[in-house]
Amino acid sequence: MALIVQKYGGTSVADPDRIRACADNVAITKRHGNDVVVVVSAMGKATDNLISLADSVSDNQPGREMDMLLTTGERVTAALMTMALHDRGVDAISFTGSQVGIITDTEHRKAKIIEVKGDRVRKALGEGKVCVIAGFQGVSTAKEITTMGRGASDLTASAMAKALDAAACEIYTDVTGVFSADPRIIPQARKLQRINFDEMLEMAGAGSKVLALRSVEFARNHNVSLHVRSAFTWESGTWVTTEEPSMEDPIIRGVVTDTTEAKVTVLGVPDRPGISAALFEPLAGASVNVDMIVQNTSTDGTTDISFTMPMSDMKVAEDIVARVAEEIGAKGVTHDNDIAKVSLVGAGMKSSPGIAASMFRTLADEDVNIEMISTSTIRISVVVASADLERAARALHTAFGLDSGEGYAGPLPERR
Amino acid sequence: MALIVQKYGGTSVADPDRIRACADNVAITKRHGNDVVVVVSAMGKATDNLISLADSVSDNQPGREMDMLLTTGERVTAALMTMALHDRGVDAISFTGSQVGIITDTEHRKAKIIEVKGDRVRKALGEGKVCVIAGFQGVSTAKEITTMGRGASDLTASAMAKALDAAACEIYTDVTGVFSADPRIIPQARKLQRINFDEMLEMAGAGSKVLALRSVEFARNHNVSLHVRSAFTWESGTWVTTEEPSMEDPIIRGVVTDTTEAKVTVLGVPDRPGISAALFEPLAGASVNVDMIVQNTSTDGTTDISFTMPMSDMKVAEDIVARVAEEIGAKGVTHDNDIAKVSLVGAGMKSSPGIAASMFRTLADEDVNIEMISTSTIRISVVVASADLERAARALHTAFGLDSGEGYAGPLPERR
Repeated sequence: MALIVQKYGGTSVADPDRIRACADNVAITKRHGNDVVVVVSAMGKATDNLISLADSVSDNQPGREMDMLLTTGERVTAALMTMALHDRGVDAISFTGSQVGIITDTEHRKAKIIEVKGDRVRKALGEGKVCVIAGFQGVSTAKEITTMGRGASDLTASAMAKALDAAACEIYTDVTGVFSADPRIIPQARKLQRINFDEMLEMAGAGSKVLALRSVEFARNHNVSLHVRSAFTWESGTWVTTEEPSMEDPIIRGVVTDTTEAKVTVLGVPDRPGISAALFEPLAGASVNVDMIVQNTSTDGTTDISFTMPMSDMKVAEDIVARVAEEIGAKGVTHDNDIAKVSLVGAGMKSSPGIAASMFRTLADEDVNIEMISTSTIRISVVVASADLERAARALHTAFGLDSGEGYAGPLPERR
Repeated sequence: MALIVQKYGGTSVADPDRIRACADNVAITKRHGNDVVVVVSAMGKATDNLISLADSVSDNQPGREMDMLLTTGERVTAALMTMALHDRGVDAISFTGSQVGIITDTEHRKAKIIEVKGDRVRKALGEGKVCVIAGFQGVSTAKEITTMGRGASDLTASAMAKALDAAACEIYTDVTGVFSADPRIIPQARKLQRINFDEMLEMAGAGSKVLALRSVEFARNHNVSLHVRSAFTWESGTWVTTEEPSMEDPIIRGVVTDTTEAKVTVLGVPDRPGISAALFEPLAGASVNVDMIVQNTSTDGTTDISFTMPMSDMKVAEDIVARVAEEIGAKGVTHDNDIAKVSLVGAGMKSSPGIAASMFRTLADEDVNIEMISTSTIRISVVVASADLERAARALHTAFGLDSGEGYAGPLPERR
């Protein structure tokens, strides 16, 4: 008898019909002789609705109170899913993050898991029950209700799979797997059969929404294989595993697009040691996730520092940047929301030089201006104007052989 | 410095604007130098919406899961109210029932309070914080989330007032106090300045929705004076206290109408000992609150037993009654949802004979047929057809001098 952890995302449980469909899925898995632990997200837009409600009531939302508010969304789904399972003759019980002993640190809204106790889940599984856990949440060492950031229900699932030594961790989502690009932008995007953690990490970091970055990190660090699939078809999805890419794998795994970031530029910064620290330390202290950073070479003793960060953190960041800019004697600060990030990801890139050059040429041929560049061993990201995003992504998907599924096997042939 | 407990009901916190208005009220109370504990209900129709959601997902809703689901409503309000208080510069903190140590028995959906620990509230009050508590909920001795029945946020407020030895317990609602009748039915209904617990208990038992029966019982048993008032005016409301009625008080305090009950009749029951027990014990076991019971005198060795009960319990009761009716050899069961209950309540009734006779004559003059009668020392209730309710209630309100505020001072003059 295998233990399967199944996580159902917000779109999979968006309304009563879909909750019942997911319950059917769980019931079948249970009847096949498996123990099942279910992790659920809040229904559809429930979390967004709670956030708007908070915005209408209050200008400044203490993290502790936001966590008290937001954790209710997943609890509602957990209770409803458990009721639907009872209707199907499946003995089930719902649990909050606190009840299953997901112990976190005290950083509200972005808490980190310290320990997963899981005693009540083990006991309930021993009694033959399906356990339905409200995702995204835990209880802090100070006994406060905490949440672990958007998308953290995946993290709850990986963490439970690890704590319970599950045979599989299935992530049910609104797509049938991980794709070579966002199919809404690139219709010819293909579903990947498998992808390794490093590639998945880079894709998540580059803005792919299929899996949250931290849950991939957790799964990699604890070697929990993930199976990303749809709740509404029985077709196999994408396996995310530790497997190294083989010779047959394409060099580039996918094109990732991200429109959730904004660019901030601090202009005319005096070029002296300690300036970067003065800027980025307070941002880190406020848990603002700065992504790409570019500093121009100095010509007149001053320099411009640009960086990207989630638009959602802008409210917090704006005050900090303005204050620091004044302290360090910068000439000004500009913001640009009309940017997008497009990235190439693939483990094969490591041993294949010239990818960056091919990428830049492809973009140049499309008249796409590159505003910022950042690279890792298996990823190249560029920031472009929002208006150029689709054109850039489609050109790259085609140029790197992803349309056909053959993959890119070397430098692009010279054009024209 | 006095400690004030303030409870805000569902209509008082139905939308962001009203939550902010209630927060203003709390902030003013705090600035006047009081310690404040706030108890909140779920926003407007939030609880009803969660119940419909459960109905759409599942046919049979385990109590434990319903409690997991329903407690989220009050938590949302508690978090939002706390945020609104922060905006007003008031240091505040929200708590769930479990966090403040409201320990209940294990009867889900209708749990009873065993103990109120209140340690976290005392500590937070000591730090100068306003405590905002999610009403209606507690944690059972088996460490499960429980709820204490509809309207139990009032109970949370009285219990906290008792545990913290509060100077006052203010119940903020959508009306400005307790009225001599429901103003929606009887426009000339008047607000009562004060009422004693026994009268309030009978009014709640007779179907008045202003205060929940159990919270009045609790307040009476623990001598917690309640001040029922509106959150949106500063006028004084109605004080509910232990005070005995004085000579000047009217004999009849109010007319209470109730349209939430249904009548069940078990026909042709063999008239032998133990029949009532056979019927009502299993209903009590299923926590169905049977209200009025009438058994007709037997003529042919069989008898008809009629009783009223909340329509909302009908789903549970129907099966039980059908089963018992068959077991005891009854001829059949009928249900009637089109009934209403109208009651006269007043402590003066105790020492004033003939009230029942005057009541029946008033109804007869209005051609209202009486289906069932039940009395206590300070209440007379009759069941009538729903269609007759308004006419009956208005006639009684006028006949017993409640329109003018003078009150009824003796038997009605003989009419025509």
